Amino acid sequence: MSEIVTAGIVVIGDEILSGRTKDKNIGFIAEYLTNLGIDLKEVRVVADEEPAIVEALNTLRARYDYVFTTGGIGPTHDDITADAVAKAFGVGIDHHPDVVARFRQRYAEADLNEARLRMARIPHGAELIESATILAPGFKLGNVVVMAGVPSIMQAMMDIVAPRLRSGARMLSDSVSANAREGDIGTPLRAIQEAHPETSIGSYPFIEDSGRPNTNVVVRSRDPEKLKAAMDDVKAMLAGLNVVR
Amino acid sequence: MSEIVTAGIVVIGDEILSGRTKDKNIGFIAEYLTNLGIDLKEVRVVADEEPAIVEALNTLRARYDYVFTTGGIGPTHDDITADAVAKAFGVGIDHHPDVVARFRQRYAEADLNEARLRMARIPHGAELIESATILAPGFKLGNVVVMAGVPSIMQAMMDIVAPRLRSGARMLSDSVSANAREGDIGTPLRAIQEAHPETSIGSYPFIEDSGRPNTNVVVRSRDPEKLKAAMDDVKAMLAGLNVVR
Repeated sequence: MSEIVTAGIVVIGDEILSGRTKDKNIGFIAEYLTNLGIDLKEVRVVADEEPAIVEALNTLRARYDYVFTTGGIGPTHDDITADAVAKAFGVGIDHHPDVVARFRQRYAEADLNEARLRMARIPHGAELIESATILAPGFKLGNVVVMAGVPSIMQAMMDIVAPRLRSGARMLSDSVSANAREGDIGTPLRAIQEAHPETSIGSYPFIEDSGRPNTNVVVRSRDPEKLKAAMDDVKAMLAGLNVVR
Repeated sequence: MSEIVTAGIVVIGDEILSGRTKDKNIGFIAEYLTNLGIDLKEVRVVADEEPAIVEALNTLRARYDYVFTTGGIGPTHDDITADAVAKAFGVGIDHHPDVVARFRQRYAEADLNEARLRMARIPHGAELIESATILAPGFKLGNVVVMAGVPSIMQAMMDIVAPRLRSGARMLSDSVSANAREGDIGTPLRAIQEAHPETSIGSYPFIEDSGRPNTNVVVRSRDPEKLKAAMDDVKAMLAGLNVVR
């Protein structure tokens, strides 16, 4: 059995909690981690408040192999993620000389104000997540990966940090449309799940564009043969159904 | 000062954590609660695992006035939310006679199988969240509101339960486009935040369709006069900026 590598996400931002901004990062990171072979186990969305961020970080970094954060690394007073990470780890924080040097190349002296310099504050011991096109760098401290909240920048940071992550056996999945309502298949599906304990079988109801109810059945496993055996049973069960939707 | 009413959300579902399904419920509920005058403080996404659900429920229901859950109330083996809620509250759970009676009207006896009857399992003491168009009801037990994961059904349930919720003074907000990069305004914005402590000022960078960086500044307060005073200062600051993007 291959090693299982786990992760949590902490989304930091009042704007998500107020509903003003709709999060697009959780789904992206979830799918990205699945493709890498890292199991996302839990997500928390917290306010721009240091105690809330520190609590979420310290709980999840103890519980999972990696924690990914998004948001709160910009230049304004409500960007407090770097300080919260330093506090969670009990380390100092300072302007990182490499980041300040890059800012000096990029900005005229008049534009290199206190707010912009704030983006160079990096906890002691962190490695930078940076590229020529990223202004404010992310960073990785221990098992915590700190990224921007703006989706395009966060996505660029994931690409940079991914090669540095340990990953496990990839979770494989296969799906089939049941052409039935979830209630039509619940009883036999439970029996199939019990017969295939090393797979995880999920069923997801949805409404077709035509208005008809339908259900996707998804089988997941790290073992391709076990995945296929369970899916074969699901398909045989579905073929034997006689339901009217 | 009016009362402040707070809430948390628990999203239950392996399909969100695997990235297969992109959550649309957090943003909807967040905006809905803001409009009701309820402050969303925290969101957790957890797996279809009873201990994870129970832990999230018990933490958040002690911490906030309300907890809203989505997902896991369907007819299949991975739908374990009702049982987890009963366990979290330490109450029993059984087929609810009103729900079973409604199922008997709706389904032929042959279709009223074990899986469908599972959707009638409601913890003792819960009030139903139901309507003529909702098949599997949601329910409210204490301060926990349990809803479907399918967005259209969840949204119908929010409309049903909303009149039963206590709400506080609505958080008001106003926003302005800075026509500047976030780093151009960070320093003066901090001073404005410090001068207006009963408001919450956020700044949200984004990239215009043209490719130019820009920033939205959002001021929030429950007091319309304090909101206006802070926004006036933000606008005066922005009018005095002399920046090139």
